[in-house]
Formats: sequence, C-alpha cells, structure tokens
Amino acid sequence: MSILVVGTVAFDAIETPHGKTDKIVGGAATYICLSSSFYTKSLNLVSVVGDDFPEDSIKMLKKKNVDTRGLQIKKGEKTFFWSGKYREDMNIRDTIETQLNVLETFDPTVPEEFKESKILMLGNLMPSVQKRVLDQMRKRPKLIVLDTMNFWMDNCMGDLKQALKEVDVLTINDEEAKQLSEEGSLIRASRKILTMGPKFLIIKKGEHGAVLFSKQKTFYCPALPLERVLDPTGAGDSFAGGFVGYLDKTEDFSFENMKRAVVHGSITASFCVESFGTERLHQIKEEQINYRKEEIKEIISVDL
Amino acid sequence: MSILVVGTVAFDAIETPHGKTDKIVGGAATYICLSSSFYTKSLNLVSVVGDDFPEDSIKMLKKKNVDTRGLQIKKGEKTFFWSGKYREDMNIRDTIETQLNVLETFDPTVPEEFKESKILMLGNLMPSVQKRVLDQMRKRPKLIVLDTMNFWMDNCMGDLKQALKEVDVLTINDEEAKQLSEEGSLIRASRKILTMGPKFLIIKKGEHGAVLFSKQKTFYCPALPLERVLDPTGAGDSFAGGFVGYLDKTEDFSFENMKRAVVHGSITASFCVESFGTERLHQIKEEQINYRKEEIKEIISVDL
Repeated sequence: MSILVVGTVAFDAIETPHGKTDKIVGGAATYICLSSSFYTKSLNLVSVVGDDFPEDSIKMLKKKNVDTRGLQIKKGEKTFFWSGKYREDMNIRDTIETQLNVLETFDPTVPEEFKESKILMLGNLMPSVQKRVLDQMRKRPKLIVLDTMNFWMDNCMGDLKQALKEVDVLTINDEEAKQLSEEGSLIRASRKILTMGPKFLIIKKGEHGAVLFSKQKTFYCPALPLERVLDPTGAGDSFAGGFVGYLDKTEDFSFENMKRAVVHGSITASFCVESFGTERLHQIKEEQINYRKEEIKEIISVDL
Repeated sequence: MSILVVGTVAFDAIETPHGKTDKIVGGAATYICLSSSFYTKSLNLVSVVGDDFPEDSIKMLKKKNVDTRGLQIKKGEKTFFWSGKYREDMNIRDTIETQLNVLETFDPTVPEEFKESKILMLGNLMPSVQKRVLDQMRKRPKLIVLDTMNFWMDNCMGDLKQALKEVDVLTINDEEAKQLSEEGSLIRASRKILTMGPKFLIIKKGEHGAVLFSKQKTFYCPALPLERVLDPTGAGDSFAGGFVGYLDKTEDFSFENMKRAVVHGSITASFCVESFGTERLHQIKEEQINYRKEEIKEIISVDL
C-alpha cells in the first residue's frame, strides 16, 4: 500500500534532565516517517522547510524510502524551529521558543502521484492545513488517521471538529480527550469522541501505555518498562508512525489488527525515547522490534 | 487458609468533586477486610478503636466473617480520625485534619488464636507497629504482604527498611517506589527494591493500573475503565484486600497465580471507588466480580 504523511519537518533544540542538544532535525512528519519506514517502503511526504534545511537530512529521508516530492523548500526562508526544556518529571515540558517561519504561510500541495495514497496520516498541524490536504485527495484514502494536540483545541476547536468528521482514527492524550469531549472520565470521553467522526480513538498515556477504543471494544496496551528515558520528544509521533506503518504493511483495518498496530506503535515509541531526537530511530533492527513485541506479549499474559 | 489483617479502623470525612460525607467508618484494615471477605471466610483483625466506635460497625465486620478478637476498644479514648479533600484531579488530595487519638499509643497484641494465620497482611501503619505484629507470630506466615506510603518513608525510613527485610510482597505506588529506591525509572526501582527483602513488588498506579514485578518477571494489569469515580479513598487498601483474599482462597503463591490475584485486586479496587467510603464494597456480588474479570481479560487480549 502507501502512506501519505503530512506534518512538520523542523529544527528542535531540546533539554531534558539527561542532557541537551543543539539544533537537530525533528518535527512530527520526520518522526512519523522514520518510524513507519520499518514497516513500509511506500512513504509520501507533504511538508515544508526553508533553504536552511540540510540537504543531507533530505537524503536521509529518501534513503528510508520517503518520497520527498511533496516537501516544499522555501527559498530565502527559515525552517520551523522549536526549543523546549523538560522538567525533572519529564511529563511536563516548557516551550522556550517557537519560530513558525515557513509554517506561517504553509499551503500544502499534494503531488498528483500522492493523491491515491491508501493511508493518510495527518500529523500534528493546524487543523485547517490538515483539512486542505484531505480535500486534495483524488480518492478517499482507505484509512485517515489524525493526530492533534491541546494547542489546536484551545485555538481552533471549530476547524478541528470539522476535520474530525472525516477521520477514521484520532490519536490524542488523556487530557486532550477530556478537553475535546468535555467529559471527566476516559470512558465517557471516548464514547463522545466516537460520535464526532472517528470510528477509532487512541488515547496515548505516555509511560502508562495507550488505549484503543471503538464503539464496542477497548484494548489496553502497556508501555514497555524502560531502563532509561532520555528524551520524550517525538514519542507520540513515533507511536503514530509505527501504528500506520504496521497497518500499511498488513492491509487489515479490523479492530483485531488495530490492536496489533497499537502494540507496534508502542514499540517504535519506546525506541524513540531512549535517545535524543530521532537518533535511536535510525538504528532499530527487526529482531529488536520482535524482541519488544515478545516482551509486551509476556507482560500482559495472564491465564484468567 | 486464614489471613491476619493489621491496619487502621477509623473515621473518615471525605470531600471529592462529586460530594462529601460526614464522619463515616473507614481505615485501611476496614477496606482490606471488606474486600478480602469476598474470597475468604477466615479473616482475623488486629487493630484499635476508641469507645466512640459504633457497635454496629463491629457487628458488620463480624457478619463479613471478620474475627474481631484482636480489635482493642480503648475506654475513654477516641477512634483515629482523618478528613481530606480531593482536588478536581482526584489523584491529588489535601489532608484537612488528622487526629491520631488511639493510634498514638497503639501497641498491637496478636491473640493466640491468630498467631498461626497463613497470610499476614500488614496494612498501612507505622512500620515499627507492623514489625511488632510480625514478631508475635508463632510460625512465619506462608506469605507476608506489606502496604505502606510516602509518609513513613519521610519519617521512619530506617524502621520501614527493617520491616521490609521480612516481607514477601510490598505494595506501593510509583512515586513511593522511586522514593524508596532512589531510582528514577520504575524498572530500576523495582530491581533495587527486590534486593531489599520483598520477592514481589506491586506498583499501584491508580487509574493506570498495577504492575507486578519479581526478579525475573513483570505483569501489567490495567485498571478497568470506569464510568465515574466518586471517591478514591481506600482504593489501594481494597486492592490489597482483593489480592490477599484471592491468594488465601487459591493457596498458590506462584507468580502465575499472583498475576490472577493482581487482577482481583484491581477488580475490588474498581468497585471501591464507585461510591463514597466503603459503601460499594458491601454490595458486590460474585457475578459482578466475574463480569469485571471478563472485561479485564478482553481489554488485554491481543493475538500477536
């Protein structure tokens, strides 16, 4: 099959209790593509960078089978930049600086060749931009997955709700699920969100795992217990990347197979957080994925 | 078999975003006994109250097969009282008042008839008091379970570590595991704690479930997604009660059976939080336990 990934390609500067980085390559679409690339060889990217973006990083994406014909390179402009610092409790981070740069005027253009991609992965971006991509598809993709965050709920809830109507799978965290649904418990939040468009909802709970909901069913996937988390940046995007990558590879959108995809999303996210930025994602081997799959299998196995 | 339960029997006054109570009967040992009573008919209680404690509440415990011969009733003294208020995020609670009363001078006496109990459940109490009970047992119980909290780590870490040396299972929450071990990740915390005495460690994560660790193995049990949590008071004690109750009933202390016991602990805790105080624990039926067991089974089932 094929996945069209839309999202930011960016520079990040990250500080966590375990160290800090200079400007490194990040962005939702970068994490998604790198994570998906373990599962599929057909990745199409729609995004934007400035002409300060290193040629080598584009080459790196190409090497991972990412078709970059939808990556706009804006002459004389600068790439989106974010810097942030995680607290001792790494569930909390403070943004130090955001330079929108090329994102400010980003008008996504989906190349003709991408318009029949089977899976559309709308990475975290302004909802109206996500929607503009969706509207350019020639055929409705077999699966549309949307990732978003509280920032868009605070600032463009209307646009977000509009986009949600056309989405199959929504991925958000527990606080965002409560904000979007205006419900206090996750089970009631999920029930309400599943009337807003999505047929499936994935609630990402970081170190506490992820929960997949459909109207009838629930699946709980724990996070792998990790020795050391160095940098949580990109965990949610890596989750989404592993999730859609696995679905693209297996071509099965049943709840049973979505459960497996959630497990694979958890696995790619577990690798992501073990190093700064995307570093660890470049070094994953298939046997390591299989090993972690067995670990998850074991820690949830019980004969009741 | 038989369980000796040690812990507080108390009055609580509770306020949560969903309501408030007057002085109601609570205390760790009360929650533990009520939860265990679904599984076992042989419960021995060691605790203390003042003569203000209602006769009816003692009768209620007796009806649940709790042998109250180890419950001291102090003439002219008052029962331990705690009042607290939960915030909108019910993971945080503020203590409004603590009156130690009878607890201040509590010197536990284990009746002769209780000294060969098979399971010893040391509910949350001052570690030196927990230890004094342990020392009175005629034979080492087949299983010793200890529950504790950050307050004792802040104030009597030495005594706690002393008691831990003789314990088989320790139940604490994730923050407490980090504090006790001085390690930042749960996996490293568990590894260190398992060198301090306990052969099994259960980390309670509230709405995020519970994790059981042995030196070689890990088991993750999710919390049941609940429509509405009215009052989290006693959830940890109810977990411990369901856990030891199930082990007493099944007489099997293997890791495989401990996993099942963790599931039953999660189930009794899930009932506990659905009403204020111990209310819901009085009304549980076996078929409701079985129904929730099937629910947990379903939400962790995946064919990988």
